[in-house]
Amino acid sequence: MPLLVVGSVAIDNIETPTARRDNLLGGSASHFSCAARFFTPVRLVSVVGGDWPQEHTEFLKNRGIDVSGLQVVPSGKSFRWTGRYEPNMNDRETLEVELDVFGKFEPVLPESFREARYVFLGNAAPITQMKVLDQVPGCRLAVADTMDLWIQTTHEDLLQMLSRIDGLVLNDSEAKLLTGSENLVLAGHMVRKLGPKFVVIKKGEHGAMFFGEHETYVLPAFPTEKLVDPTGAGDSFAGGMMGYLAEQDNFDPETLKTAMAYGILVASFSVEGFGLEPIQAITRDDIEERMSEYQKMLSF
Amino acid sequence: MPLLVVGSVAIDNIETPTARRDNLLGGSASHFSCAARFFTPVRLVSVVGGDWPQEHTEFLKNRGIDVSGLQVVPSGKSFRWTGRYEPNMNDRETLEVELDVFGKFEPVLPESFREARYVFLGNAAPITQMKVLDQVPGCRLAVADTMDLWIQTTHEDLLQMLSRIDGLVLNDSEAKLLTGSENLVLAGHMVRKLGPKFVVIKKGEHGAMFFGEHETYVLPAFPTEKLVDPTGAGDSFAGGMMGYLAEQDNFDPETLKTAMAYGILVASFSVEGFGLEPIQAITRDDIEERMSEYQKMLSF
Repeated sequence: MPLLVVGSVAIDNIETPTARRDNLLGGSASHFSCAARFFTPVRLVSVVGGDWPQEHTEFLKNRGIDVSGLQVVPSGKSFRWTGRYEPNMNDRETLEVELDVFGKFEPVLPESFREARYVFLGNAAPITQMKVLDQVPGCRLAVADTMDLWIQTTHEDLLQMLSRIDGLVLNDSEAKLLTGSENLVLAGHMVRKLGPKFVVIKKGEHGAMFFGEHETYVLPAFPTEKLVDPTGAGDSFAGGMMGYLAEQDNFDPETLKTAMAYGILVASFSVEGFGLEPIQAITRDDIEERMSEYQKMLSF
Repeated sequence: MPLLVVGSVAIDNIETPTARRDNLLGGSASHFSCAARFFTPVRLVSVVGGDWPQEHTEFLKNRGIDVSGLQVVPSGKSFRWTGRYEPNMNDRETLEVELDVFGKFEPVLPESFREARYVFLGNAAPITQMKVLDQVPGCRLAVADTMDLWIQTTHEDLLQMLSRIDGLVLNDSEAKLLTGSENLVLAGHMVRKLGPKFVVIKKGEHGAMFFGEHETYVLPAFPTEKLVDPTGAGDSFAGGMMGYLAEQDNFDPETLKTAMAYGILVASFSVEGFGLEPIQAITRDDIEERMSEYQKMLSF
């Protein structure tokens, strides 16, 4: 089943304690799409400026991603982000961020995209995310991401958006911010009561937690010693998870758990190199091999 | 198979954001013993002062713990600790600590304890821990805990102690401090190269990681929303793990993994109330029931 993602594509400059890389293809929708593409066809909707490197679009096309929903605003500038990671590779500082065309993004879906049944709303203003929902009346599973900015500045919009989606994916600090609870288990349940049928809290190197009506569980991250660049790991996680659900065309509790595991594994590959390089270097077989290791790791 | 533990017993005063409790039975060996006792007979060696409440000794006796190795120094004072937890219930501040008799502790094992085959060296000066090892020539499995204080002040002793034990249990910040690595996977392998055949890194609410010669794995904590008092959770973890190994009289890789899971589950109960209250309220059946849930949670 094809999967629709609406979110940012960006140009990233990334500095880690040992290296720096400039002009990488980044953005939530890029990472999400490439991760999901291991499992299912992906349709991407986003916006870039006249400065957008054609090679980035070619990269996505070559991965088999349908970029016919990628708007180009020739007079505008693409979303750029420059960040530096602390030695712990977890905390990071945003050195520069220019939203530009993405800041004024009006998502307009190509006609053929409007029949989407599996939809991921990448991190964007809740009002923008709801404009996407308006255009996909046949949607069976809508999952969204969010961030601290929207929790703090557009709280009412966010609550309205939460009442319209099936699932929310957010990270641990965002869940604490949204609920005021320092206990993640309580926070997860509290977020679910705001509307979504299920909530996934991403904990970075510590894995992810799932909160459904009848299930609460946590799966650990796959332990990798090769942590090069965590940028986009959360989007890769969401891409792997949603990609598997769309592939199975099913989101019963058992499938959701397996999907979360796939998300964790795709994310574990994504941090092993800069930008999308590690994702480009692997195949579905590599993911399946790691899945066998992961399942062995969790059985006793 | 009986299990020997040498470590502190203490009087704890604990303050959380919502409550305060004084004069609780605490100390690494107390928490360890009570956790291990679900699985196997436990022999405890420690020291207290003339001010030690007899009721605490009775509590341990009533749990079936052999306290014939508990030295009493009538002229001395017992180890006391007062701590306050931050709202996140993870960070804590030590408000007062008086080592007293435990600071001068000379572990002398009763004759009948010297045949011990399973030994846990609770957090103490490495030189004290090694004095225990000298007294258990037939030991098959010696596992130790340590802390930042010994890493910083008695580094050479610590390295010598590490070369003499089979396993080391330490928490994430200690592993980073000992190795200088911010990556826990790398840190775990580095600690193992210092001597122990296996290393367990405790990550609190995020579970625990295992590093053996051929195995690296991580198991998540059991998600509990009832976090009342985390004091002693790490010792309860070690007690559950070592208790199961001694019960099985086996420490092959498969048994070690199951043991780590039991440690995680006993620890998950231990945080659900103050001090040793939650441990007192449960039976082995409760642990087995949670084990079934845990295994179900980790399978997909």
